[in-house]
Amino acid sequence: MDNKVDIFDTTLRDGEQVPGCGLNKEEKIIIARALEGLGVDVIEAGFPISSPGDFESVRAIAENIKNPTVCALSRAVEKDIETAADAIKRAARPRIHTGLGTSDQHIFTKLKSTREKVIERGVAAVKLARKFVEDVEFYAEDAGRTDNEYLAQVIQAVVKAGATVVNIPDTTGYCLPEEYGQKIKYLVDHVDGIENVTISTHCHNDLGLATANSIAGVQNGARQIECTINGCGERAGNTSLEEVVMIMRKHRWLPYTTNIVTEQLNPISRLVSKTMGMPVQPNKAIVGANAFAHSSGIHQDGVIKNRENYEIMDPKEVGVDESSIVLTARSGRAALSYRIKKLGIEVPAEESDTIYEKFLELADRIKLVSDQDLKELLSQNLATSSH
Amino acid sequence: MDNKVDIFDTTLRDGEQVPGCGLNKEEKIIIARALEGLGVDVIEAGFPISSPGDFESVRAIAENIKNPTVCALSRAVEKDIETAADAIKRAARPRIHTGLGTSDQHIFTKLKSTREKVIERGVAAVKLARKFVEDVEFYAEDAGRTDNEYLAQVIQAVVKAGATVVNIPDTTGYCLPEEYGQKIKYLVDHVDGIENVTISTHCHNDLGLATANSIAGVQNGARQIECTINGCGERAGNTSLEEVVMIMRKHRWLPYTTNIVTEQLNPISRLVSKTMGMPVQPNKAIVGANAFAHSSGIHQDGVIKNRENYEIMDPKEVGVDESSIVLTARSGRAALSYRIKKLGIEVPAEESDTIYEKFLELADRIKLVSDQDLKELLSQNLATSSH
Repeated sequence: MDNKVDIFDTTLRDGEQVPGCGLNKEEKIIIARALEGLGVDVIEAGFPISSPGDFESVRAIAENIKNPTVCALSRAVEKDIETAADAIKRAARPRIHTGLGTSDQHIFTKLKSTREKVIERGVAAVKLARKFVEDVEFYAEDAGRTDNEYLAQVIQAVVKAGATVVNIPDTTGYCLPEEYGQKIKYLVDHVDGIENVTISTHCHNDLGLATANSIAGVQNGARQIECTINGCGERAGNTSLEEVVMIMRKHRWLPYTTNIVTEQLNPISRLVSKTMGMPVQPNKAIVGANAFAHSSGIHQDGVIKNRENYEIMDPKEVGVDESSIVLTARSGRAALSYRIKKLGIEVPAEESDTIYEKFLELADRIKLVSDQDLKELLSQNLATSSH
Repeated sequence: MDNKVDIFDTTLRDGEQVPGCGLNKEEKIIIARALEGLGVDVIEAGFPISSPGDFESVRAIAENIKNPTVCALSRAVEKDIETAADAIKRAARPRIHTGLGTSDQHIFTKLKSTREKVIERGVAAVKLARKFVEDVEFYAEDAGRTDNEYLAQVIQAVVKAGATVVNIPDTTGYCLPEEYGQKIKYLVDHVDGIENVTISTHCHNDLGLATANSIAGVQNGARQIECTINGCGERAGNTSLEEVVMIMRKHRWLPYTTNIVTEQLNPISRLVSKTMGMPVQPNKAIVGANAFAHSSGIHQDGVIKNRENYEIMDPKEVGVDESSIVLTARSGRAALSYRIKKLGIEVPAEESDTIYEKFLELADRIKLVSDQDLKELLSQNLATSSH
C-alpha cells in the first residue's frame, strides 16, 4: 500500500461553518490560492446549493485553481448534485462530494427513512454525480456512530456505484482512536474492491480527539485526511491540518508522507485567522503564538544547552522565526528593547517612551505581540526609520 | 483495579508557565478555591524555590485549601525539596513532587550525568522528601523519550525508596497514543510493587495528542491524569482537564470515574482565561465559545429535530446555557433581539439603537459575545432595567 496521504482541506466549507465567519468570494479565492501554495491535494471550496454567493465562490475557485482537485459538497439530492456539478464544471480536477446520514440516529430521527432506502439514495446520488465527473466522493454522515456491519454494506454499494473516495466522518467527535481505527480496518477487511478507492477520515474535535482519530484512521488504511487550517469549524471544529501533517512528518514510527510545504503552515494559519476573524489560542499546537515559546527557567536553561531538550521540531520547519518569547502587556521595557534589537531595528532614545506606550496599547488590545505585530507597530510609529 | 481516576490539576504550576501569564498570590488563591469546588483531587500549587512570590503563593494555598492534596514542585535538589516542604507544611494533605530527566537526551546534554547517577539522585530526592511528608510523587522528566527498560529501572528504584505516585511525563509532546499506552503497560508489567503506587500521566500537546495520550495511559493502568484548565501551559500547553474528564464520563467503552463537578467546567474555564489573560479559542473542545454552537443549515435542522443528531453531551452538563448561536460583529439587529429576548430581558424601543451600537463596539473588541457578556452589557447600559 502506498504511504502517500492526501490532504483534503475543508477550511472553505466545513471550516467556514462558524457563526460570523462567513467569507466572501474574494476572501475565499485568496485562501484557496494559499492552500494551493501549501500543497494540499484537494480543496473543498463550498456547498453550492446553500446560497448564490457560495455557488459563485465555488465557481471562481474552480476557475482559479490549477493543481489541487476542487471539490463541491452536496446532499444526496438531485438538485444539490446538479448545482455542485455546475459550480465546478471549469475546474482542472473537479470532484463532487455527496452523501447522507448512515447512523440509526440520523436515519430514523433526521432522515425519517430506513436503512434500505438510505443505501438506495446513496447509490443513486453517486451514479448521478458520476454522470458529471469522474471523481466522486461519498460521505456516510455520522459514520462514527454507525454500526460497522451496516456501514460496510453502504460503502460496498456506493463503491459498486462508482464512488472513487469514501469518507467516514466522525460527525459528532465521539470516537476513541482505537474505535475509529477499528472502523476503518473493518471496511478494509469487509468491502470488496475497497483497494481501488481511497478511504478518507473526517473527524471532529468535540472531545479533543480529532487529530488522534485521523492518525488512527491512516494507520488502519485511510489515505486521505479531511482537515482545516487551525482546526476551524463548527462547534469544536475539525481536525487541524497542521497537527496531522507534522505528526506524520516527525514521528519515527509513521512511514506516511504528504505534499505539504510545512514552512507555509504558520503564514497560512495567520491568513485564515485574520480573514475569518477567528483567533488562534496562544497554546494551539504548531501554530499558536506560544507553540515554540519557552518561559520557565528550567526549560530556558535546557533549550539553551540543546534545543532538542524541549523541542521536537525546528520552528523554522513550520514557518516560525527562531525568537520565541512572546511579548505581552506585562512585558517590561528591557524585554521590548531586547526584542526590537533582535529584529535589527534601532529606536532613538527620544522615541523610546512613545514606542513603549504604543506597544502597551497594542498589547492590552491583542494580548500577545508577535514579531510581525512589532514590526508593523514600529513602521507605523517610528519617525526616523524606514522599516 | 479501581476505576477511579485522580485529577491532578497543574494550572497553577505548569499551566502558569506562560509568557506574561504569571499570577499573583490573590489570583492563585481564587483559582485554587475554584479548583477545590470543581472537585480536583490534587492541586499543584507552584514551584516554591523558583521565587519568593511563588513560595508565598504555595504557602497561602496550603493554608486555604482543605479537601484536595496540595502539591509543590521541586527538582531533585536538596534545597528545592526543603523549600517545597516548608511551603506546604500547613497543608491538610501535603505532597512533594520531585524528579529529574531520564531520557538520554536529558541525561547527557542537560544534566551532563550518567544513567546510574540519575537513579541515585532520584532515590536520594525521594528519600529526603519522605522525611517531610508521607506522599511523594516522582517525575521522570522526558519519560516520553526514555527507553522503557531504563525507565522501569528508575521507577523500580524510586518506588522502593518510598515514592507513592510515579509520574511519566511526555515532556515534549512527542508520543503517539499507542506508544504512550505501551510505556505505561511496560511499567505495570515490569516494576515490582507498582500495584501499591499510583501511575500518573503528564502529557504535552505539541502535536495535538495530549488528550489521547492521557486516555491511553489510563487504559493501560495509570490512575492519575495531570492536566490544566483550558489546556494552558508552556508552548502548546498541557492536557486539557475538561477534555479528559468528559471523555471518561461520556464514552460508553470507558469505565472510569472522576470526582469532577462537570457543571463547573465552563465557569472555571472563563475564570482562568480572564485571570491569566489567555484567550480560549472559540473552537476549543468543551469550553470554547462555539463548542455547542450550530450555524450551518443542515446542522440546525438536525438539532431542532433531535439534539442528539449533532451533540454527544448536554451543554448544561458542562455549565453552558442551552442557547448556542454565538453573536459576533457580523450579527444583525434581529439576531441580537432574539438573543436578548431569550435572556428574558426587555429593551425599550427608544434604547435599542444605543444597545445595538454598544453591542457592536463590544463584538469588535472581543470577537464573540456570550450570554454572560450580553447580560453585563445590558446591565451597564440599559437605563430602565435592573438586570
